[in-house]
Amino acid sequence: MDPNVHLPQVPLRKRTETLEDFNKIPAHVFPASAGRAEDGELVIAGNRVTELAERHGTAVFVMDEADFRARCRRLAAAFGGGERVHYASKAFLSRTVCRWAAEEGLALDVASHGELSVALAAGFPAERITVHGNNKSPEFIAAAVEAGVELIVIDSLEEIGRVAEAARSQGRVQDVLVRVKPGVHADTHEFIATSHEDQKFGFSLASGSAENACLTCLSTEGLRLRGLHCHVGSQVFEADGFALAADRLLGLWARLVSGGDGDGSDADRAALDILDLGGGYGIAYTPDQEALDVEEVAGDLLSRVAAKAESYGVDAPVVNVEPGRAVVGPSAVTVYRVGTVKDVHTSDDTVRRYISVDGGMSDNIRPALYQAEYDCRLANRLSTGDLVPTRVVGSHCESGDILVNDALMPDDIVPGDLLVIPATGAYCYMMSSRYNMMLRPPVVVAADGTSRVMIRRETVEDVLALENF
Amino acid sequence: MDPNVHLPQVPLRKRTETLEDFNKIPAHVFPASAGRAEDGELVIAGNRVTELAERHGTAVFVMDEADFRARCRRLAAAFGGGERVHYASKAFLSRTVCRWAAEEGLALDVASHGELSVALAAGFPAERITVHGNNKSPEFIAAAVEAGVELIVIDSLEEIGRVAEAARSQGRVQDVLVRVKPGVHADTHEFIATSHEDQKFGFSLASGSAENACLTCLSTEGLRLRGLHCHVGSQVFEADGFALAADRLLGLWARLVSGGDGDGSDADRAALDILDLGGGYGIAYTPDQEALDVEEVAGDLLSRVAAKAESYGVDAPVVNVEPGRAVVGPSAVTVYRVGTVKDVHTSDDTVRRYISVDGGMSDNIRPALYQAEYDCRLANRLSTGDLVPTRVVGSHCESGDILVNDALMPDDIVPGDLLVIPATGAYCYMMSSRYNMMLRPPVVVAADGTSRVMIRRETVEDVLALENF
Repeated sequence: MDPNVHLPQVPLRKRTETLEDFNKIPAHVFPASAGRAEDGELVIAGNRVTELAERHGTAVFVMDEADFRARCRRLAAAFGGGERVHYASKAFLSRTVCRWAAEEGLALDVASHGELSVALAAGFPAERITVHGNNKSPEFIAAAVEAGVELIVIDSLEEIGRVAEAARSQGRVQDVLVRVKPGVHADTHEFIATSHEDQKFGFSLASGSAENACLTCLSTEGLRLRGLHCHVGSQVFEADGFALAADRLLGLWARLVSGGDGDGSDADRAALDILDLGGGYGIAYTPDQEALDVEEVAGDLLSRVAAKAESYGVDAPVVNVEPGRAVVGPSAVTVYRVGTVKDVHTSDDTVRRYISVDGGMSDNIRPALYQAEYDCRLANRLSTGDLVPTRVVGSHCESGDILVNDALMPDDIVPGDLLVIPATGAYCYMMSSRYNMMLRPPVVVAADGTSRVMIRRETVEDVLALENF
Repeated sequence: MDPNVHLPQVPLRKRTETLEDFNKIPAHVFPASAGRAEDGELVIAGNRVTELAERHGTAVFVMDEADFRARCRRLAAAFGGGERVHYASKAFLSRTVCRWAAEEGLALDVASHGELSVALAAGFPAERITVHGNNKSPEFIAAAVEAGVELIVIDSLEEIGRVAEAARSQGRVQDVLVRVKPGVHADTHEFIATSHEDQKFGFSLASGSAENACLTCLSTEGLRLRGLHCHVGSQVFEADGFALAADRLLGLWARLVSGGDGDGSDADRAALDILDLGGGYGIAYTPDQEALDVEEVAGDLLSRVAAKAESYGVDAPVVNVEPGRAVVGPSAVTVYRVGTVKDVHTSDDTVRRYISVDGGMSDNIRPALYQAEYDCRLANRLSTGDLVPTRVVGSHCESGDILVNDALMPDDIVPGDLLVIPATGAYCYMMSSRYNMMLRPPVVVAADGTSRVMIRRETVEDVLALENF
């Protein structure tokens, strides 16, 4: 248990009002193939959840391959081609998902030397990789240039020199974007038009430091400036923030393209063709949420960029986007087995039921870290119980180890039952730890009525192998 | 970047007011052996930090073996013997620290099957191991009973049956404690006398469920009730919360020992001898903090327990305690290398300096997870700069990736410099992740002018070895 653990005080979100609601599988939160068999058991891509648990153990991540691929295709269609859609691999990265993304024609974002190494080990085409990070080491930069990545996103003045040096020393010219802080921060259902300069990424648009960085790139041998990048937020449900950021970046864009800044040669400017508007497309974690409509956002953004560019009298750039969660988030679920059920009197007349499962904050830190809310369903059968206030907790030695803070769940859930938490594809396995030596669960691919291990379960031997003793 | 990332709004804590302060190494925050060499470089157990960085790379955890051992001895002396002091291995567990704790005569707490497995692999004597957890699997319980652990702490009604079944099926009698919620929550400098029932651990004292659980244990074949356990909080600086919890538990204790509850035989009660008051002893993360005085707390608790028992007319139980952070927290530091330095205008007339290092929330999630505050010093030399508002951030692709949110640090820190964050021995490596494929740093033991690898740095090959591809 750690200091300052204050249990999240999230108001009760009534995910389900009735038992009938609870027994449903909300299609917009679960993978596309998920549903109940006739006997009430949850089935994912033709796999009964009891069979998955039997074969792979619990806790286990189950990823629906067809769902992942369908989201790739949908995004590619919306944004005018897979090369415009850069899968943000930090959300979930393995060689298998690199292969899926490559086969669906997507491009890829990496944000560390490790991510680049895994992508290259998967055979992902380097010419479709964009490199991010606020603190890229010289070794990382050299490896990226050597691999022939399409774009490196310049995040600091130091990096201009480092990337140029790596490129020149390898006899290459490296295409780059400049990361811009547009002064827009989108947060779920709102955006703040003047904010969020006080963070580590990029160059401020308002202060002129973004423009200075661009001009430096234009005049630096070994670099070719291809455009601008920004990222306005995460888990965003309204497109206005993206649009405003695009508007603002296009002002700088027009000055750069037209030479209105009075610096750099026309040849340098001829390469400018990309506006990368980042990711952040919201998904539904709970039934009352609705994912951002990517076709609507894409249509809006592309037309807005075209119109704005026309108003400046310049050619419109192509628009790149960087979805991670919106690709992989809904594609996976976590299956847990119930271990204990305990009723706790929270006051004289109220009782909260605590259901403990065989996982927790080591495989999903997001509730503890971001007060993230998740849905949770009984997976191995239909319930016939009465709904009671319930908290789903993990097995860690920490009172903040909570997966679902406050939900109405039926009172007939017992040890041995299987619970499933949907929409765990993004930022769960990737942020997983070995806290309390609760080793990482496997990630299993479900497809066409079969399942196979993508990432195997960790063992104590894996831990001990790192030790000198 | 994740939704709902709100940068911590911690008010500026003036860790250092002057450059002279900044150049000092605060002895109560750093390992005992840490200090500056004549040329100003930080030295730990006779190892220059530049040599440690050169040999082991950065980021790197450096653990002072003598400091760890000295804290073990100090706690053992304070509480009347190492067998009374159970090192809470969740704070930091490896076979090496198990050996150190064993050699210093301490007992050990484990809270998962994985922790038990590592302890046994280290050869830690099972008869000095206590087993915790709110959701112990039947396999974990069976392994613990089979290994011959001293105590299993019963956390739920289900577990009474499970432990008894494991014991009976192995022809053994298992010693157990019952975990009690005393209705006391200690939080740093305060405690709340009636609170914190609404969490997953243990049985409520106030409702009578703790007493019922004890009586059930007393009458269950295969179990021998040895006493009661409670845990009132973490990173606690005032002993009053421990004392109040002890007082309350002794009320139940007296009824159990004297048979005042009218159940169980005298033979059953004869084994009752342990009051385990848990851990939570605060350490100094920053110079303005002062660690809980363990001798003072021990003296106070032991005399209080004795007096209270006497007032009830029963023999005083022995008191077990479970420090984790207080043993290992101050024994280790993290050494990072500076990658980029960026000044960000947070308003028209204020600038915040962002220093990026080659680690971050993957090796220390505590600032992001608990808004924990850390100290940070320039390690490879003395500074001659002017103090400026500074934020130390990691290399992750997430704006909440902050190690030190707000500090005054000198303006002459440049890329290539080494920064050290002290008091990272507890809950940093153990909660570490591979987020952004930033692989875990090594843990290096510093002792007597030499260093050796306790846990090696992870590689991309370690990640790929888990994958089927």
